[in-house]
Amino acid sequence: AMDGAPPPTSPTGLSVYVAVSQLLGLTLLATTGAWLGRYRGGVAWHSPLQFNAHPLCMVLGMVFLQGDALLVYRVFRHEAKRSTKALHALLHGLALVIALVGIIAVFESHRSKGIPDMYSLHSWCGMATFVLYLLQWFLGCGFFLFPAASFSLRGWYKPQHIFFGIALFILSITSCLLGITEMLLFKISDSYSHFVPEGILANTLGVLLVAFGLVVGYVLTREEWKRPPLAEELALSMDFKTLTEGESPGG
Amino acid sequence: AMDGAPPPTSPTGLSVYVAVSQLLGLTLLATTGAWLGRYRGGVAWHSPLQFNAHPLCMVLGMVFLQGDALLVYRVFRHEAKRSTKALHALLHGLALVIALVGIIAVFESHRSKGIPDMYSLHSWCGMATFVLYLLQWFLGCGFFLFPAASFSLRGWYKPQHIFFGIALFILSITSCLLGITEMLLFKISDSYSHFVPEGILANTLGVLLVAFGLVVGYVLTREEWKRPPLAEELALSMDFKTLTEGESPGG
Repeated sequence: AMDGAPPPTSPTGLSVYVAVSQLLGLTLLATTGAWLGRYRGGVAWHSPLQFNAHPLCMVLGMVFLQGDALLVYRVFRHEAKRSTKALHALLHGLALVIALVGIIAVFESHRSKGIPDMYSLHSWCGMATFVLYLLQWFLGCGFFLFPAASFSLRGWYKPQHIFFGIALFILSITSCLLGITEMLLFKISDSYSHFVPEGILANTLGVLLVAFGLVVGYVLTREEWKRPPLAEELALSMDFKTLTEGESPGG
Repeated sequence: AMDGAPPPTSPTGLSVYVAVSQLLGLTLLATTGAWLGRYRGGVAWHSPLQFNAHPLCMVLGMVFLQGDALLVYRVFRHEAKRSTKALHALLHGLALVIALVGIIAVFESHRSKGIPDMYSLHSWCGMATFVLYLLQWFLGCGFFLFPAASFSLRGWYKPQHIFFGIALFILSITSCLLGITEMLLFKISDSYSHFVPEGILANTLGVLLVAFGLVVGYVLTREEWKRPPLAEELALSMDFKTLTEGESPGG
């Protein structure tokens, strides 16, 4: 504004969709809390309620925080790329730590109750998603945050990182829906088919998870809302391109 | 080839991925058949086995055929757009009819056994997906296949059609995973946690469904594999653009 240029603004539609995504995200957390608090006795660590930390941590970490980490390049579209990248890595790192706590909760709860681990489709999908998400985080840090990879290697990896990032976000939501279905059929199998309030509430949580995924996915994939490169980034990328093409004319 | 130009070819990577997707799709169908045939007594219409038509039809229609319908613009990349469009609509139409048979199977089976309908998260997700898929099919025919919509209206709807098309494909796979989890917890809740072969087989079906979704999704979203416009389409689109811009200079 000092140099007379108007301050950069975001597209109006984008701001509306981002606001809706955040409302949905908070509603997700509130609905999970309501389910666990009202019908499942609440959450506590060293107690028979330890299991309940699992759904709460997974919705908070693997859905809400992971989704927000994906949105940072759309929301902070005029900030320096380096700070936005750091925030992206930080939010994913926080999501990973919270998800790890949620995974420990279910393993400890199973051990104290003598329930076997890792036999269900929910556990297979959920564990695969978590392990690949951790791997993706390390690869992302290695390629983009610390200057280890060459410009052309980054350019090759970037579309893969984006594709698998969105795929892991979708798989996280799918794993949550599988977990909701499992928990309902374990806890209220006799009354679920009579449309009891707990069943309706948990189904609604599933629908909200899908809605959050749809809104975040729409924001991420809409072409006009992609982060425009800053002037200095464009110049830098031209320099690198010239250098790279100079080195290997066949590329 | 008659005029001396080399025949158009597909990118090698694309052909490999499409071949893998078709192998996965056939493996999906075989695994579903093996589960129902080996452990669930097979499939028959007017019998207590009518329910088993449901998973078979949904995997065939809502996953395999829907996935292949999405791939036609990548596979038939040098054919006339109009014939590819017709094939796209035809495959989706076939998927809809087969899915409808699968939905009738579960409603009739519930009625004969006195089981309530539409109480589970699987039924909510699955029914929402089917209804929206039917709506998307009608909208697609109206906008693109029959010359009802203007050029600019088509241009506005196309990205929405693509986004919701991929979203509905993902939701179809998610609904299948929820259905697998429900069916296992209804049928083998006592032995599922002991890693019995039926549980492992059905979990593997879930993993194959995810793998099919990943490969199809990768083919659809890879930038270099998008269908290139034919020379005559480019010329036509230029003509339309000139006309449209001539009509409303502000657009």
